[in-house]
Amino acid sequence: MGIVERDIDDLPKNPANYTALTPLGFLERAALVHPTRKSVIHGSLTYTWQDTYRRCRRLASALTKQAVTFGCTVAVIAPNIPAMYEAHFGVPMSGAVLNAVNIRLNAKTIAFLLGHSRSSVIMVDQEFFTLAEEALKILAGEGKGNFTSPIIIVIADENCDPKTLQYALGKGAIEYEKFLETGDPEFAWKPPEDEWHSISLGYTSGTTASPKGVVLHHRGAYLMALSNVIVWGMQEAAVYLWTLPLFHCNGWCFAWTLAAICGTNICLRQVTAKAIYSAIADLGVTHFCAAPVVLNTIANARKEEIVLPLRRTVHVMTAGAAPPPSVLLAMSQRGFRVAHTYGLSETYGPSTICAWKSEWDSLPPEEQARMNARQGVRYVALEGLDVVNTQNMKPVPADGRTVGEIVFRGNIVMKGYLKNPKANKEAFANGWFHSGDVAVKHPDGYIEIKDRSKDIIISGGENISSVEVENVLYQHPDIFEVSVVSRPDERWGESPCAFVTLKPGVNTSDQHRLAEDIMKFSRANMPGYWVPKSIFFGPLPKTATGKIQKHLLRAKAKEMGPLKKSRL
Amino acid sequence: MGIVERDIDDLPKNPANYTALTPLGFLERAALVHPTRKSVIHGSLTYTWQDTYRRCRRLASALTKQAVTFGCTVAVIAPNIPAMYEAHFGVPMSGAVLNAVNIRLNAKTIAFLLGHSRSSVIMVDQEFFTLAEEALKILAGEGKGNFTSPIIIVIADENCDPKTLQYALGKGAIEYEKFLETGDPEFAWKPPEDEWHSISLGYTSGTTASPKGVVLHHRGAYLMALSNVIVWGMQEAAVYLWTLPLFHCNGWCFAWTLAAICGTNICLRQVTAKAIYSAIADLGVTHFCAAPVVLNTIANARKEEIVLPLRRTVHVMTAGAAPPPSVLLAMSQRGFRVAHTYGLSETYGPSTICAWKSEWDSLPPEEQARMNARQGVRYVALEGLDVVNTQNMKPVPADGRTVGEIVFRGNIVMKGYLKNPKANKEAFANGWFHSGDVAVKHPDGYIEIKDRSKDIIISGGENISSVEVENVLYQHPDIFEVSVVSRPDERWGESPCAFVTLKPGVNTSDQHRLAEDIMKFSRANMPGYWVPKSIFFGPLPKTATGKIQKHLLRAKAKEMGPLKKSRL
Repeated sequence: MGIVERDIDDLPKNPANYTALTPLGFLERAALVHPTRKSVIHGSLTYTWQDTYRRCRRLASALTKQAVTFGCTVAVIAPNIPAMYEAHFGVPMSGAVLNAVNIRLNAKTIAFLLGHSRSSVIMVDQEFFTLAEEALKILAGEGKGNFTSPIIIVIADENCDPKTLQYALGKGAIEYEKFLETGDPEFAWKPPEDEWHSISLGYTSGTTASPKGVVLHHRGAYLMALSNVIVWGMQEAAVYLWTLPLFHCNGWCFAWTLAAICGTNICLRQVTAKAIYSAIADLGVTHFCAAPVVLNTIANARKEEIVLPLRRTVHVMTAGAAPPPSVLLAMSQRGFRVAHTYGLSETYGPSTICAWKSEWDSLPPEEQARMNARQGVRYVALEGLDVVNTQNMKPVPADGRTVGEIVFRGNIVMKGYLKNPKANKEAFANGWFHSGDVAVKHPDGYIEIKDRSKDIIISGGENISSVEVENVLYQHPDIFEVSVVSRPDERWGESPCAFVTLKPGVNTSDQHRLAEDIMKFSRANMPGYWVPKSIFFGPLPKTATGKIQKHLLRAKAKEMGPLKKSRL
Repeated sequence: MGIVERDIDDLPKNPANYTALTPLGFLERAALVHPTRKSVIHGSLTYTWQDTYRRCRRLASALTKQAVTFGCTVAVIAPNIPAMYEAHFGVPMSGAVLNAVNIRLNAKTIAFLLGHSRSSVIMVDQEFFTLAEEALKILAGEGKGNFTSPIIIVIADENCDPKTLQYALGKGAIEYEKFLETGDPEFAWKPPEDEWHSISLGYTSGTTASPKGVVLHHRGAYLMALSNVIVWGMQEAAVYLWTLPLFHCNGWCFAWTLAAICGTNICLRQVTAKAIYSAIADLGVTHFCAAPVVLNTIANARKEEIVLPLRRTVHVMTAGAAPPPSVLLAMSQRGFRVAHTYGLSETYGPSTICAWKSEWDSLPPEEQARMNARQGVRYVALEGLDVVNTQNMKPVPADGRTVGEIVFRGNIVMKGYLKNPKANKEAFANGWFHSGDVAVKHPDGYIEIKDRSKDIIISGGENISSVEVENVLYQHPDIFEVSVVSRPDERWGESPCAFVTLKPGVNTSDQHRLAEDIMKFSRANMPGYWVPKSIFFGPLPKTATGKIQKHLLRAKAKEMGPLKKSRL
């Protein structure tokens, strides 16, 4: 009986009713609506939204004068300082793609990134100038004929040693403020012609050998920026502390979110518990994002670093590895409301959230923390999330036990890896993006990561989730951080091996006894085959974004050779 | 120096990283995340998000079985009841377009709409069955050969007279719940192939002769739904009262917004002050939208209708004509926080908002109300808003005095008018959507409507904004509602003519004296040439959405003939 009426769909796009989605327009709007509201605060330096918009247009204009345009890449090597924030708008306003480089990488890796991305301009914080210099030397030494020397812009920061700035200027770098002066503050930037155009490029933190360049587009950045506001219930004018590096997936796209809600960005060169508590007390911080390790730091801060009680509830978004329930509990006791999310650089940052349910309000705190430690449900801008058996792509049953791979689908999944068709083919196999993370689906539909595929320990034919072992160990009173990996084992094939950092003040003179104590605790609190058979003490190797580099620990465990006599 | 790198943009869309934007996915997510949370409450009837999702899929499935598909239109003639809410998801899930019909239209106009839209299914509330029947008779009588009789579904509501249901069933209509039973609650609906596909059709309320069919698409509905959350600072789980008709531009797209934030919809068959105050007190309403006339009703409610103080701040979004500052003030004194927005059916509902500034906090209440009575700035999902001189399309200076036409551009501007190329050409001239509203731009960038182009009164060569005259008159203690239009005038060409409704309790026996008093008040509070030269008392004609029909009043004023001896 349906009457098909072609006319109802026969209305074409026109300039009045179609614009490419881009987060850049949020900045223009913020400058119009709240021109005098503080946009960016960095120590004694304060900008308003009007300032920021003018500075970003100057940057775009200055870049354009240097022939930077659509298809070009501009690299930034800097911590969370105003210029880094400005690059998130100024660079794409010129049509170019932003490559925010992890400052904790070594020169060799950065050389690879700059060469691979063919960055034509490098903006570098004065403290990291010699690092960039070294990377460029390596790159030049490789003699890639097609690589033109990039323009080097050095960003001065009064919080740094003036000598490093002098050095950079002596080497012919242009100072950032001087560079801005060459640009027009009224520069007539345009949205991209196509919202599928690339906005940024970020390299995976390199837990594997060769970093992959994750390319994101304007459409996804726009949707992610808005989605952050909605899933986190952020209000207009929120005050956001930049604990999370902007070079990590564009600060999970919060660079753009802050402009959408006309909020205030608080910069932070270095993340310490003291700096976080001070910013909350002095600058009215309402929100920040942080890797679980930062939560650990906050929860275990020394008395003299702490300013408590908090003046108001402070919202914290965490992602990455699941934070141990004990840390979630400690945070909530201090007045922080932790939103637990999960995602990857390939999904614009967090793209699942453990959405809180009112039913949980009445649970004991430990139980609440356990519920909230799960990775949860899809972000509002993510269209598909599932846990599947990768053999047949069928969803696993929602039984909380059957493991499968987490897969994503939708508009906040990356465009692809740069110049890496093989990786793209694998990543996008069967119409889903494959995370490489192993999880279960609970009866309530919430997913929970059990491990990275490669982090699963297979002992005597049994799968052991290294994360679950870690979660138990975190409840041990002396343990500050712990990472569990597989160690070759003559009897069991593999067995759990724990690398432990102790809390400040723990007597470390008798490590054997400490190890005994931890094993005893383990036997009391987990299945026998989970109990770590080897325990080592010392600092843990981490990526620039604070993720523990399990592949290095695994290599270390392997080097020690197989465990000869397993006690179980 | 820019190195153009084609690869950076050479990453095609694939099923894993691109999905057509559609608000339908919000419902699937709400059912997953909060299956047991209340989705829709209607009197004693309560549904959860799981229920709503299943019911909407049943509807989509049942429609599909009737050959309803992409390109078809389904009309709904109903007040704000659960079936109306469900149609906003169920109909587009079948691929069809939703035509929510204004229930206050007469049969002749509805006949025109049903014929023009070629609706193949009509869902009609039992109370409005005879209206639909009459409309269909008119339509059949016109003998349009190509019009097939639509399927009629009658929606039962226990709050109505059972006879009307019996009558409808006797006429062969299918009852809605019975119809749902023919559908599959697990129906595998699909997002549209293209986000530009139409999702809904709404006819302009007919202040002009022939209603125009405004076609909206999935992309815009998605963006608008999210934008509503952000500009209004809505939190997850908000409780939303349906004072605004869903047939008015899909309830300004809040139908979809509520699913995005997993909130609760409170239905309302009839909008009264008592019903609003009760819903706030009994059901925890946090948000509602309403035309200014509803605010007027709330502000002037009788003592026995009121439940004050409010348990919490209640957020009210208003749009349409500018609410008089006096009404805004009264609302804020009662604890309602009024967000003032502006938009048109053609812009998916409100697409500007008078964003509140902290500087206004310290202003006197009257001044606050005056600032907040302006139409403000663009919505976060609207890319362009300006006030232009239509002669040359140049923006007017931001001086608060120079008038021009409000124009819109961006993703929340309609696809176009259905089967009306002439109107489309005019509406989209010069790359902007033309609102037909006359406004100024203030130095702070906020726009303020002075009038509809056709509502401007030109008296002795001077432009008079009918809205500004009304705003002054609203301060008169006896005036409940007022509308000012032009009346032909022998001496001045035109002069202001006021139509007035008085507050309950005002002694109306001596209308001449009342008119004298209002004129005296006018002379004391406005420029001489603004003072209404004719004043009439009585109820004001309104459109179904509560807009005063100035064209009818203008016609009335014209019929009276030109004013002979103007007193000024």
